[in-house]
Amino acid sequence: MMRVITRDHYLGERLMQQVGFADKELDQSVLEIISQVRQNGDDALYDYTEKFDGVRLDTLTVTEKELREASKLVNQDFILALDHAKENITRFHEAQKEQSWSIYHDDGRLLGQQITPIEKVGVYVPGGKAAYPSTVLMNVIPARLAGVKQISIATPPQADGKINPHVLAAAHAAGVDMIYKIGGAQAIAALAYGTKSIGKVGKIVGPGNAYVARAKKWVFGDVAIDMVAGPSEICIVADETANPRYAAADLLSQAEHDEQASSICITTSESLARAIKEEIEVQLGKLDRREIIKKSLANNGRIIIVGDLNEAFELVNVMAPEHLQLMIQNPADSMHMVKNAGAIFLGNYSPEPLGDYAAGPNHTLPTSGTAIFSSPLGVYDFVKKTSIIQYGKNALLSASDSIITLANAEGLTAHANSIQIRKDEQDAATVYHTKNN
Amino acid sequence: MMRVITRDHYLGERLMQQVGFADKELDQSVLEIISQVRQNGDDALYDYTEKFDGVRLDTLTVTEKELREASKLVNQDFILALDHAKENITRFHEAQKEQSWSIYHDDGRLLGQQITPIEKVGVYVPGGKAAYPSTVLMNVIPARLAGVKQISIATPPQADGKINPHVLAAAHAAGVDMIYKIGGAQAIAALAYGTKSIGKVGKIVGPGNAYVARAKKWVFGDVAIDMVAGPSEICIVADETANPRYAAADLLSQAEHDEQASSICITTSESLARAIKEEIEVQLGKLDRREIIKKSLANNGRIIIVGDLNEAFELVNVMAPEHLQLMIQNPADSMHMVKNAGAIFLGNYSPEPLGDYAAGPNHTLPTSGTAIFSSPLGVYDFVKKTSIIQYGKNALLSASDSIITLANAEGLTAHANSIQIRKDEQDAATVYHTKNN
Repeated sequence: MMRVITRDHYLGERLMQQVGFADKELDQSVLEIISQVRQNGDDALYDYTEKFDGVRLDTLTVTEKELREASKLVNQDFILALDHAKENITRFHEAQKEQSWSIYHDDGRLLGQQITPIEKVGVYVPGGKAAYPSTVLMNVIPARLAGVKQISIATPPQADGKINPHVLAAAHAAGVDMIYKIGGAQAIAALAYGTKSIGKVGKIVGPGNAYVARAKKWVFGDVAIDMVAGPSEICIVADETANPRYAAADLLSQAEHDEQASSICITTSESLARAIKEEIEVQLGKLDRREIIKKSLANNGRIIIVGDLNEAFELVNVMAPEHLQLMIQNPADSMHMVKNAGAIFLGNYSPEPLGDYAAGPNHTLPTSGTAIFSSPLGVYDFVKKTSIIQYGKNALLSASDSIITLANAEGLTAHANSIQIRKDEQDAATVYHTKNN
Repeated sequence: MMRVITRDHYLGERLMQQVGFADKELDQSVLEIISQVRQNGDDALYDYTEKFDGVRLDTLTVTEKELREASKLVNQDFILALDHAKENITRFHEAQKEQSWSIYHDDGRLLGQQITPIEKVGVYVPGGKAAYPSTVLMNVIPARLAGVKQISIATPPQADGKINPHVLAAAHAAGVDMIYKIGGAQAIAALAYGTKSIGKVGKIVGPGNAYVARAKKWVFGDVAIDMVAGPSEICIVADETANPRYAAADLLSQAEHDEQASSICITTSESLARAIKEEIEVQLGKLDRREIIKKSLANNGRIIIVGDLNEAFELVNVMAPEHLQLMIQNPADSMHMVKNAGAIFLGNYSPEPLGDYAAGPNHTLPTSGTAIFSSPLGVYDFVKKTSIIQYGKNALLSASDSIITLANAEGLTAHANSIQIRKDEQDAATVYHTKNN
């Protein structure tokens, strides 16, 4: 089930993976939903929720009463775990806060950059059968730390019209302003353009199914989005010091997400490769989600044998994995070899689920090789920058010839005029001043 | 030509502007071009260049010889202006460099964030009739400072198959690795997916026409992009201390970009409004690009009269202008009122063209109200972050109950298993250890 392959074999497989555009039918459905929500607002939302979530709602918003009742439905262990996670996530993300800055120059120029939070943010939280309270914490806490004024959650209701109590408890712990009972592409459209009940936001974050992902791509530009997320991935680089039971458990944990998840181990040790393969068989039988895991491992599970760690890191950088575990001797010494990865987990006691829930760094990470150009979600995703430019008379006059030359070279003569007119007036003033002396 | 309106009138107009999806014909053309480039590589690039730029090229790459010859075709003033701009842009962007960081905790946990440059970046530079050397500097310098290893420029050739010498001189000054003679959607496709001659990049930045903008939106996700840029805008907030000649010149300079550009002045002074209107008529007659300017002002030029500065800044934050000039008394005192703007220019001697060319901050700014959620281009756009997580045995055991509880609440039992298996082994070891005492 878990195929053992060579480095060259892997690179060959990788080359054949063509990134592609979504199929046209999906796009048509998504565009139709967006268009309906823009035209018919709340009516469209009630209709789609009935169609896709199987419930006709009376209101799109979670009430105070529902929030209170939910907190009674979760147990105390869960609340404690939530608080533990919240504390670590908060502490880590506080270190990401950026400051406005400015530099005064001797000639009176002031240049700088002002940091301002995005005012309104929408967080999509998948729902239906499963519930993801950790998604709530990981998206809401950095937004709150950034200073976002209004944070809304959109999450599809269960068939009984309610929202999973674990999600509500997490929303309460993280401090959310509004929870909407809507899901799918219709939720993304509502957050992007607003309806009577749903406030338009400046940015939409959070994971979702193919409809959600595609809708985010379509509204991108009218509103900011975090990323177009793909299936989840793990890559474990292991040498002979790795514990095969642990490595197997970590590969299996990634594979349970869905049938498209990738669990890859790159190792310098053939005996370790065998041991991991055996451990996977042993542990798999005991796992609830073994049917998903089997398919996932058959599709994308690989153990790749390499000659040395240099070869391993070469593959890692091509792969740009979402999660990278370094189960090797002195893993910190090899960190500089990693150019492309969402998160790096060092050693036998830093398994990926630790990062999913409780270590503190964000679990929203770039998937499908996008770590080549993108970053984990962070406080920086919920602020924007504004440049500050202040020149006085003399500083502008000193710069005027350069600006006029460059503007003329670009054929933008009205740009040159904006500088020239100040220069001329200044020249006139100088003459006048001289005369009076 | 320049309409004077009230605050309420402006808000009414603004509400009616529906952000929309591109027309289907444009999308079909762009998707066809992308698909042809992916299928036929260089052949498609040669064909499209012949079709759209009117020249059949022998090679897609600018040669060393062309670069040398170009430097002889620009004059010394231009080189000096380029160097002046380069120095200021470099100094400003150096202040944006971010550092990797990590925090050790007492219990042995190590958490942090590693900063790595994107390895390969493509810069699109519009060409054809106009030439934009400033675009080269503003995109290449921050990429270089971020540590990007390979920076390529794509720019459409002139009808004689050459690239404008000012663009080449700027590319030489900024330090570019490769210049491709391709433009339009085909250039974006080639940079996103690679061909025999064109190297695939991790991120594409730079402005362009509707085809370029749309192609960037389509390849987004497979590759990073800077933004989907719209027409350029200026908003001037002016009180009775503003110089109407300067304000008029600055509004005119923005209007010359194209017929969709927006030049808006918000003022508390009716007499200033009249004076600016008159100055616009006076200066317009002398400007080369007056036909474009007239249309632009008729479409989107507005002078809005407000009661006080609070009302002015309320409008500014709705508008979220790309360029904001504060031509008011003590402008620095009002900066905190600005929530949404690409760049703020303070006082009578900080006109917008100063920022376009020479002040130092980037001229690639969020347009069309996207300053609500996005930032000027900067060094931060050319790096990405990787989270670092290292836990030791004890730290993981302390956290294990929380993680297991949260994983089980989400139904991800293989995640719980990854922690449990380490906990069990540890418990076994503890028992064993106790027995031996």
